Amino acid sequence: MLKKQYLMIPGPTSVPERIVRAMSREMINHRGSEFVNILNEVSLGVKKCMKTDNDLYIIPSSGTGGMEAAVVNILSPGDPVLVINIGAFGSRFVKILKAYGADVDELKFERGVRAVPEDLDKKLGEKNYIAVFLQHNETSTGVLNDVKKLSEIIHAHGSLVVVDAVSGLLTADLRTDEWGLDVVVAASQKAFMLPPGLSFVSFSYKAWECYEKAKMPKFYWDFKFMKKFAEKGQNPFTPPVSLYYGLLESLKMIQEEGLENVFERHRKLKDMTRTGLKNMNLKLLACDEAASNAVTAVFPPDGMDADMLRKNIKEKFGVMLAGGQEELKGKIFRIGHLGYCCEADVVVTLNSIKECLR
Amino acid sequence: MLKKQYLMIPGPTSVPERIVRAMSREMINHRGSEFVNILNEVSLGVKKCMKTDNDLYIIPSSGTGGMEAAVVNILSPGDPVLVINIGAFGSRFVKILKAYGADVDELKFERGVRAVPEDLDKKLGEKNYIAVFLQHNETSTGVLNDVKKLSEIIHAHGSLVVVDAVSGLLTADLRTDEWGLDVVVAASQKAFMLPPGLSFVSFSYKAWECYEKAKMPKFYWDFKFMKKFAEKGQNPFTPPVSLYYGLLESLKMIQEEGLENVFERHRKLKDMTRTGLKNMNLKLLACDEAASNAVTAVFPPDGMDADMLRKNIKEKFGVMLAGGQEELKGKIFRIGHLGYCCEADVVVTLNSIKECLR
Repeated sequence: MLKKQYLMIPGPTSVPERIVRAMSREMINHRGSEFVNILNEVSLGVKKCMKTDNDLYIIPSSGTGGMEAAVVNILSPGDPVLVINIGAFGSRFVKILKAYGADVDELKFERGVRAVPEDLDKKLGEKNYIAVFLQHNETSTGVLNDVKKLSEIIHAHGSLVVVDAVSGLLTADLRTDEWGLDVVVAASQKAFMLPPGLSFVSFSYKAWECYEKAKMPKFYWDFKFMKKFAEKGQNPFTPPVSLYYGLLESLKMIQEEGLENVFERHRKLKDMTRTGLKNMNLKLLACDEAASNAVTAVFPPDGMDADMLRKNIKEKFGVMLAGGQEELKGKIFRIGHLGYCCEADVVVTLNSIKECLR
Repeated sequence: MLKKQYLMIPGPTSVPERIVRAMSREMINHRGSEFVNILNEVSLGVKKCMKTDNDLYIIPSSGTGGMEAAVVNILSPGDPVLVINIGAFGSRFVKILKAYGADVDELKFERGVRAVPEDLDKKLGEKNYIAVFLQHNETSTGVLNDVKKLSEIIHAHGSLVVVDAVSGLLTADLRTDEWGLDVVVAASQKAFMLPPGLSFVSFSYKAWECYEKAKMPKFYWDFKFMKKFAEKGQNPFTPPVSLYYGLLESLKMIQEEGLENVFERHRKLKDMTRTGLKNMNLKLLACDEAASNAVTAVFPPDGMDADMLRKNIKEKFGVMLAGGQEELKGKIFRIGHLGYCCEADVVVTLNSIKECLR
């Protein structure tokens, strides 16, 4: 029988028809006046989503590119830094930092748990770190960090705060300026409802002070070069123009729904997902308090392989779920409920899981 | 009066309706089996365009990202390298190499001229270079290098050959394996007729030998990491899925036209453009022998500002031309005749220039 596709993974997420149409416009000169207007408008829009007046750079790359840019623009080799590691994307920060020769310490938490403020406070008391790296939302475990609280502690110790909000932005509030987040990284293929290909990085005045001393090599990720071009409404390198068309439309949709309503929708989808799974007696990886609004990680019933279950669900119902990463591979499955996602999508997903578990 | 847009710049180029439609497909899981098939098919297709059996990596970035990847995967800081600089993109290689601490020498030629093989041979006799960097087609001046001849000389001196073919690939023959080109960089927004957002890099066995000794820091650009994922039909980081859909269609169009016919079409468009401009008594930057099939750089009549002329042509006829770069800014204008471009586009362009010069 005909099956519709339900892309319930934590990114790339479904792209609304409006955005697909917007992206289907003819190509323009990326050094012409029309592009200047587009760049200015989308920059302003993304800043609103991040609640910041800091500089914002839009990079032709996946989210990881934005994370790498966040690293090389503020640090020199040998600089002491701390990574709060609550999942695979914490580990990714560690790998990037080590690749560029930073002196990396890790504050690692069990998978499924969010960072404990007291542990962070203690760790920061042991050493002076130039910067602390953390996830807003950890995609691999479905855990939301208390960024406000963590940022307060980091500031009390005088370090820079670098936040990977790739999967978190728009699914839960993130107040870049109010909470003093120096660098925030986001990307197009999550709650912005766009295809992958753009990363967004906000960069504070304090981050610029670090830039002046930062000796890690950079060219493609160099924010000073980007700043020079941004001043004339351009990118240094050819930008993915069609994604900018899509971003314009995405920001329009977010404005129409209202930013706070977007958060609220994600919170509701999370509650609905978790309640449904609990009613099936399934064990969830994250506790309610730390649960992500973007993605829910679930254990299959004892003795069942998570990846076989996913395969079944996909074949029978067209619902695509994500698997586990790193040490959680084969042990959990993950439901993405972010971006262009509504209650009906969650109903279909929960029903397909229920049927396949029979 | 209604005006159609003619995007006659050397990239991004116009995107055919077929490709726009192909890109408008729904999003899929970039870690699922369907994407595996797409990745394998497009990799094979791009390799055919490059005439290579070497490894090929497709990176979510602009062309410059591919150039940076070419650098950091084969070199260590302090490594002696030579850049054959015939224009702004030669200078770009120099900047990237210097940013990563390579010991860079330049063999610079006057703008509008292609690299002179004898000069290269002499230069290579003075010092042992690990690698030599050059452009296939120099976009900023509209000059095509004799890559075959240059590569022969470089090999005779035992250096690696790294070619930026971003604007050149598909506009003129490039035989990666037959000519022994170790690293070749291309990108989506030129003769592939796609929007910007993907770069392509081929990497030879000899390049892999250099990789093992290469100490420049890398994470996002790391080919070993990409190779590991490529073996299971994946990218390490979320790929711009819709551009892959477009690339599938682009490769189909190239196959239908025939690769050699694609070169021939570009050669004809170049001849037509140059003949038309000469008939207007305009001076061309490149001599016939070194003329690019992708882009033609032209001097406006004496005393006329090139950028004012471009503005006029755009306003009156909807034809968008590119300006000069670096020392040529304001002095020349450039006509892109690559990618989704046919004789009628050149007719309209030449006519608009003629009318505006009256």
